[in-house]
Amino acid sequence: MDSKKTYEEVIAWTKQIAVIGDVIGHLHWDQRVNMPPKGITGRSEQLAFLEGLSHRKLTEPEMVAKVNELSEVADRLDDDARVNIREIKRDVDQATKVPTALVEEISRHTSLSNAAWVEARQKNDFNHFAPFLEKMIDLNKQKAAALGFADKPYDGMLDQFEPFATEAKVKALLDDLRERLVPFFHKILAAQPYDVSWLTGRVYPTDKQREFGLDVIREIGFDFEGGRQDISAHPFTVGTKGDVRVTTRFNESDLRQSLFAMIHEAGHALYEQGMPDEHLGTPLGQSVSLGVHESQSRFWENIVGRSRPFWQHFYPQLQKTFPEQLGSVELDDFYRAVNTVAPSLIRVEADEVTYNLHVVLRFEIERAFVAGEVKVTDLPELWNAKVKHYLDIDVPDNAAGVLQDVHWSEGFMGYFPTYTIGNLYSAQLRDKMIDDLGDFDGLLAKGEFAPILDWLRSNVHAHGKRYHADELIERITGAKPSAEPFMNYLAEKYGPLYKL
Amino acid sequence: MDSKKTYEEVIAWTKQIAVIGDVIGHLHWDQRVNMPPKGITGRSEQLAFLEGLSHRKLTEPEMVAKVNELSEVADRLDDDARVNIREIKRDVDQATKVPTALVEEISRHTSLSNAAWVEARQKNDFNHFAPFLEKMIDLNKQKAAALGFADKPYDGMLDQFEPFATEAKVKALLDDLRERLVPFFHKILAAQPYDVSWLTGRVYPTDKQREFGLDVIREIGFDFEGGRQDISAHPFTVGTKGDVRVTTRFNESDLRQSLFAMIHEAGHALYEQGMPDEHLGTPLGQSVSLGVHESQSRFWENIVGRSRPFWQHFYPQLQKTFPEQLGSVELDDFYRAVNTVAPSLIRVEADEVTYNLHVVLRFEIERAFVAGEVKVTDLPELWNAKVKHYLDIDVPDNAAGVLQDVHWSEGFMGYFPTYTIGNLYSAQLRDKMIDDLGDFDGLLAKGEFAPILDWLRSNVHAHGKRYHADELIERITGAKPSAEPFMNYLAEKYGPLYKL
Repeated sequence: MDSKKTYEEVIAWTKQIAVIGDVIGHLHWDQRVNMPPKGITGRSEQLAFLEGLSHRKLTEPEMVAKVNELSEVADRLDDDARVNIREIKRDVDQATKVPTALVEEISRHTSLSNAAWVEARQKNDFNHFAPFLEKMIDLNKQKAAALGFADKPYDGMLDQFEPFATEAKVKALLDDLRERLVPFFHKILAAQPYDVSWLTGRVYPTDKQREFGLDVIREIGFDFEGGRQDISAHPFTVGTKGDVRVTTRFNESDLRQSLFAMIHEAGHALYEQGMPDEHLGTPLGQSVSLGVHESQSRFWENIVGRSRPFWQHFYPQLQKTFPEQLGSVELDDFYRAVNTVAPSLIRVEADEVTYNLHVVLRFEIERAFVAGEVKVTDLPELWNAKVKHYLDIDVPDNAAGVLQDVHWSEGFMGYFPTYTIGNLYSAQLRDKMIDDLGDFDGLLAKGEFAPILDWLRSNVHAHGKRYHADELIERITGAKPSAEPFMNYLAEKYGPLYKL
Repeated sequence: MDSKKTYEEVIAWTKQIAVIGDVIGHLHWDQRVNMPPKGITGRSEQLAFLEGLSHRKLTEPEMVAKVNELSEVADRLDDDARVNIREIKRDVDQATKVPTALVEEISRHTSLSNAAWVEARQKNDFNHFAPFLEKMIDLNKQKAAALGFADKPYDGMLDQFEPFATEAKVKALLDDLRERLVPFFHKILAAQPYDVSWLTGRVYPTDKQREFGLDVIREIGFDFEGGRQDISAHPFTVGTKGDVRVTTRFNESDLRQSLFAMIHEAGHALYEQGMPDEHLGTPLGQSVSLGVHESQSRFWENIVGRSRPFWQHFYPQLQKTFPEQLGSVELDDFYRAVNTVAPSLIRVEADEVTYNLHVVLRFEIERAFVAGEVKVTDLPELWNAKVKHYLDIDVPDNAAGVLQDVHWSEGFMGYFPTYTIGNLYSAQLRDKMIDDLGDFDGLLAKGEFAPILDWLRSNVHAHGKRYHADELIERITGAKPSAEPFMNYLAEKYGPLYKL
């Protein structure tokens, strides 16, 4: 084998698969941003065709053989090639290990299950969804077994979203976080709450919100020559360097919703826009994991975007944008309003502190049902008990409880933890960044975001998938993934805010 | 051969190729409507990949063999199947006859040639473009020869856009039109011109223009559940039933530009939205030709949209939309303003009468250079002479002359005539529609567009590619394609306007 030539063939083929993936991503974007309702039939056919094509390409025996050959002589490849082959082999193995019949059955069941979830949520009827969820769990266990996680199916599920994460590691991390976070949150609960009705009682025209938000994400570094911003029911980010698209949604009476969604999605986009050009379309030009992706979005949304110095810089402009609504509101009142902590039912509306409790309870529940420790029909009761325990509120109905998230209906089990993993990583990155850059708050207050973005570019973005997530975090920060920096960050920030 | 089973296989395969075509169309739409500048590299790769895939699929030997087998037993197929196989075989033959090397060379040269044209137009330097055009003509002659039109290469070029049209037929039609149109236009030139400076001297905010335009196309029947409307540098229509997208552009000081572009593109869209559901993705669910497509857009734009009864219906609403600009302007003045005839340099800005002279001169020039009767370097002189002869104006420079249109730079030779063919068809359809529906003007004046659209649906749209263009026109109207109805329509309309 001429390994140089074989490697080039494999890379060209990998890039073609990436091209198909880009088209699929774009069509999903369009579906949620632009597509007229009757387009759904055609769009479904387009996506099914392209997904099938991508899968067939990824499992072409001739190319799989080449990947395996290269993998066997990996020590003779250069560093870059070794990483790419390691990751390509991982993709190929996953694609070839799962029998096509199972892939198709999961795909068919996902449509049914999602439709059942939509109806169940509308009707507030968990029992309608339960059998679909039960089957979804079973199918995902079969998939995990096919992938080689027969003993620990949850490991196999996690691994889809956070490669090389294991239930044991994630559990240790989240248990530790929970032990610290619950008492911390209960201290805040006991403190004087902050009333934001002054903020939500005013109207903020959406065109002004949009204008301001676009200015903010432009200033932090979003490249509009290589991306765009639109509106969708649920904010998301799609695309790869050159064409990264973010969305938001607007609430006329609460400007926080779109603003922080825009900064959050811009954080995801900055990661994609920071990939090394020479590796685009290959693993070295792709993000590490959902957790690392979320570390970027939450870093910009919370650590930067909800900080006081950030608003020292931006608040005068926001006041000019909304002179009637905010002209006479002090910076500190606004800063408090974007950092109120309060128990709530809905994860996606939760604050920085309680958000992770929403994730912890989902993690505990999905671990339990995957392990067969709890029956699906008992989930509502378990859910409500955990919400009461961690957040100290009563769940009025399943629509606002166990049925609120789409994830399980689509077979995304092992996905939720990546949200919290991202939060923990973001705090670890922050500490190291402060060590390296010095006066972090000073940079924010002056609106000097370039050094911050550059730091993320060279420490995180430039590496693509070179390192696994925890390896990357340890290389950058010198420490393994941990809940401690995040808790220190919360204490430092919310201590003064709530006089703890 | 089990011809029923084979036919089903061929149809499934045809539909897959149509799905790829839909994705390609969508990506082109996105490129012109949404894509950020740096997306071009990725988008080019996506399109190249999908176009290659489509071509490989269309030439799969196993499927080509099945198409040929079915074609040989066509008399044993039912009517629908016979039409589909006839048209699929035509596509397959075209795709297989042209050598891949030539396809690739044309594709490569098109990029270069288009870039050269852009630069030449900017610099007003025809000589920069001339060698690229020369090569483009040569490559297209090779392609025509490969398709089997070695003696009459121009036939082969026409056939790409207006299937089964021939140079001889088109020449007869356009010569006849020219003989009647030139003196008619010169009569108008001699009449009192109508001054529209009152209209173009006012400002029409684009959001109001858009709102009104959307109301108009909704009222004539554009289905927004199965389509949408956006903005692009050049108006166009993309998509198939379920998701048909139209675009326009706005001129703040001349509301006619976006308004008639919106109606024009809606006309194209109504054709696509009128395709029979059961045949979507197959020739029986696809448009006949560019000429027939243009007959639909020009019918709605001109015959309907520039008629006096149409404005009897819509003008009060337009006045309400622009009370300061049009509140005190009489309907008849507005009607005249949207029907002024004047010589002009630019085809896309020309009125209903002179438009076809722009097309005639392009047809004559491209016929001549394809036949080798004129050297490429002599085109500017020939162009300017024809503009002087037909339109009685001097061309100040090549940018406003021979370099104005993109078509030749992209190898679209034989395309221009379809614009005029569409105009002629639209007038023939109008006459028959009046016979069938009676008081056509009355329907327009009452804003009753449904009977008009229904007539087009059942007479034109419902047939897909069942009949060739001239066959379809003859079936509907009882007459062969002819310039006479169009000239009668012009005389009837512009006689009173210009007191001829």
